[in-house]
Amino acid sequence: MVLDHYGYGLGGWVPGTAMDYQSGFTAGSDLYWMAMALAEGMKAVGKAPPNPIVGCVFVKDQKLLAKGATEEFGGRHGERVAASRLKEGEARGGTVYVTLEPCCHTGKQPPCAQLLVELGIKRCVMAMVDPFHKVNGRGIRYLEKHGVKVEVGVMAKEAMAWHLPFLFSSHYRRPLLVGKWAQTFDGHLADDQGGSQWISGQESRAYTHFLRQKYDAIMVGSGTVIADIPSLNVRDCRGPINRSPVKIIIDPKGRILSIDSEIQRHLIRKTFAGEPTIYCGPEHKSSWLSHVDMVHSIELKGPIDADLVARLNDCYQSLKDRPLQSIFVEGGPSLLNRLIGQGLIDVFHTFQRPSILGGHENRLGTAGKEPQRRLMAEKQDLYLLASIVLGQDIVVESLSQALANDIWKPGLESLHQSHR
Amino acid sequence: MVLDHYGYGLGGWVPGTAMDYQSGFTAGSDLYWMAMALAEGMKAVGKAPPNPIVGCVFVKDQKLLAKGATEEFGGRHGERVAASRLKEGEARGGTVYVTLEPCCHTGKQPPCAQLLVELGIKRCVMAMVDPFHKVNGRGIRYLEKHGVKVEVGVMAKEAMAWHLPFLFSSHYRRPLLVGKWAQTFDGHLADDQGGSQWISGQESRAYTHFLRQKYDAIMVGSGTVIADIPSLNVRDCRGPINRSPVKIIIDPKGRILSIDSEIQRHLIRKTFAGEPTIYCGPEHKSSWLSHVDMVHSIELKGPIDADLVARLNDCYQSLKDRPLQSIFVEGGPSLLNRLIGQGLIDVFHTFQRPSILGGHENRLGTAGKEPQRRLMAEKQDLYLLASIVLGQDIVVESLSQALANDIWKPGLESLHQSHR
Repeated sequence: MVLDHYGYGLGGWVPGTAMDYQSGFTAGSDLYWMAMALAEGMKAVGKAPPNPIVGCVFVKDQKLLAKGATEEFGGRHGERVAASRLKEGEARGGTVYVTLEPCCHTGKQPPCAQLLVELGIKRCVMAMVDPFHKVNGRGIRYLEKHGVKVEVGVMAKEAMAWHLPFLFSSHYRRPLLVGKWAQTFDGHLADDQGGSQWISGQESRAYTHFLRQKYDAIMVGSGTVIADIPSLNVRDCRGPINRSPVKIIIDPKGRILSIDSEIQRHLIRKTFAGEPTIYCGPEHKSSWLSHVDMVHSIELKGPIDADLVARLNDCYQSLKDRPLQSIFVEGGPSLLNRLIGQGLIDVFHTFQRPSILGGHENRLGTAGKEPQRRLMAEKQDLYLLASIVLGQDIVVESLSQALANDIWKPGLESLHQSHR
Repeated sequence: MVLDHYGYGLGGWVPGTAMDYQSGFTAGSDLYWMAMALAEGMKAVGKAPPNPIVGCVFVKDQKLLAKGATEEFGGRHGERVAASRLKEGEARGGTVYVTLEPCCHTGKQPPCAQLLVELGIKRCVMAMVDPFHKVNGRGIRYLEKHGVKVEVGVMAKEAMAWHLPFLFSSHYRRPLLVGKWAQTFDGHLADDQGGSQWISGQESRAYTHFLRQKYDAIMVGSGTVIADIPSLNVRDCRGPINRSPVKIIIDPKGRILSIDSEIQRHLIRKTFAGEPTIYCGPEHKSSWLSHVDMVHSIELKGPIDADLVARLNDCYQSLKDRPLQSIFVEGGPSLLNRLIGQGLIDVFHTFQRPSILGGHENRLGTAGKEPQRRLMAEKQDLYLLASIVLGQDIVVESLSQALANDIWKPGLESLHQSHR
């Protein structure tokens, strides 16, 4: 199973690929307009969570009338944003392209299906059904009852990949954990001295910054924080910069609590600037860190597990007034291996540079000092979604088998079922 | 740098990808016809070496007139094969598509450029210039002097990848060494007990069998031979089966010489059946192996180096009456790591299964027991050509930096030079 349209990855359209988002599609085809709708959503990356960021395009007589995407939480859905850009009566008899089934219930906004009927839309092409229990085919039935011709499944895989944080968190009621790393062919995330600059190239780093916007929070280990004093914000994106993620630092041994005052100053100026930080480490009521603005603490007692994720969600909710939908785990190797080893990573963005390093340390698959020794039949298989070339890197996007079986495959099957 | 057209790998068009060879190209476009010419060459995979396997298509008024590919060594070139299928005078005023510049010198066959002029061809579209010193722009000049419009560079990368064994051996005067392996994300070619079945899926294995036809000989280590008793022939290809490779077995310690008689019988029936085998190991004039038909021996004194490759070439020449143009190294891990470590591999076909195994042994990048410890800046970078998804595997094709700099990049630059 592979995303069918080159250049669409889990993050959405991959900025930096040679292929433009509509290239390869015949102008005026359903694919062409749906790609435009998806790209419209992607321009709004990071804006609407926990709502799905829906892209919408109105077309009549093969002419683009208006397009739009969902606004920030509580704001208008993509259909309503695009509709606000139509001239009076203009869309009557036209077609609408949406990346997700229009809603038919009154939430923070009036239902979109009703809006489309009022606009006199003749045909509604949607990439996928919205599995959210208040929608789930009701939008389709409403539209059809009012004489709108409905087609489902155009660029379904791409739309599912794009809407995955929303699909996952509505299904499991917990945040999606996304692992991202850059590696050599021989599985090194860094050399034996810890050096990792640079495995991947500029295009991959730009895509990573795009992904940082897609996901609500970014998680790193204390080793990365102390070694790199990273900003963990969104900078080198080839697209709009809509937000930076909340930062989560995992520090089981409290290494950050005892660093010298010069590094403290650097961290305060760089890592703890901008968006808030959630620090997960030992209790530290009287340490220097407890006096830093924008740093919120969660006591880390045992390993990273579902309970910690739930407490991260609570903390995020208190900071942002909405649930934590997704966490982007950027490593380093020891944090990533621990989470992978425990089966906690749901989505994998792997950046591979075709190169061979050698050495023993900082490799994938070595949780703790002694790597697990498994037989081939026992290996942890991921479910491949897509592979894209970015510059000299190969980006591979895959899912845990659980996520593939619980959400991805049923989502594709639902396209072939009748919702009428 | 990435091959532009999805589905074309170093082996040529990748059988088993969802995309058909001409899919995505507008019918009747230059790309469409050139893809057909390339596919025509690929159907003849393995037939013509050391000649390049040129595909040729004659077209007039957007209608296919005839197609063909180079015959076995000494036989007719692709242009002449296709021309023999034309009706009298039919191609006059038409266009010809060829994957390589037509020759203009009399070798084993009369010059193709002259043939095209005699047929009254108006336009000649070629994927690339033939850098062979007797051609190298002379074909283009001959055609233009006789009023044929020439265009160069349509699907140039794909054609260069396809013709690489020919390009390489004409440039360096030695065989191309091609490494192929299947690995997990964490760089394991096998588990700690040596198990490697199956890292890659059925589609990848079919592609591997296609590649076995593309390259003249297949090289494996004695470990693989003893563990698997492999046939090393071409079986599960999704295309024509034109030949199986000559087998080369590397056995520095002479392990095969001292195996028990039951395994001897298996080897004789399976591994040493079909095409001849070249055994590289200690001197063994009185061993069981010296009595096996179809096994030819070369004494292996030191490491695998340029001298051994030259002796392999001599042995192949005596068997097949033509030079050894390419060797497909299928491992196992210790042979591959040794060759990679010495910088002897020119082309890399890597099959990756998105999976994580764990363990210490049988990993990429560990030549000998103790892996080399290098800094990130010292890693061995390959030059990425293409990445293709096959089933649940990612196929990555790359070149050594030397090959990229000596042949690939100059080949692409030559397209922009005037040959007139």
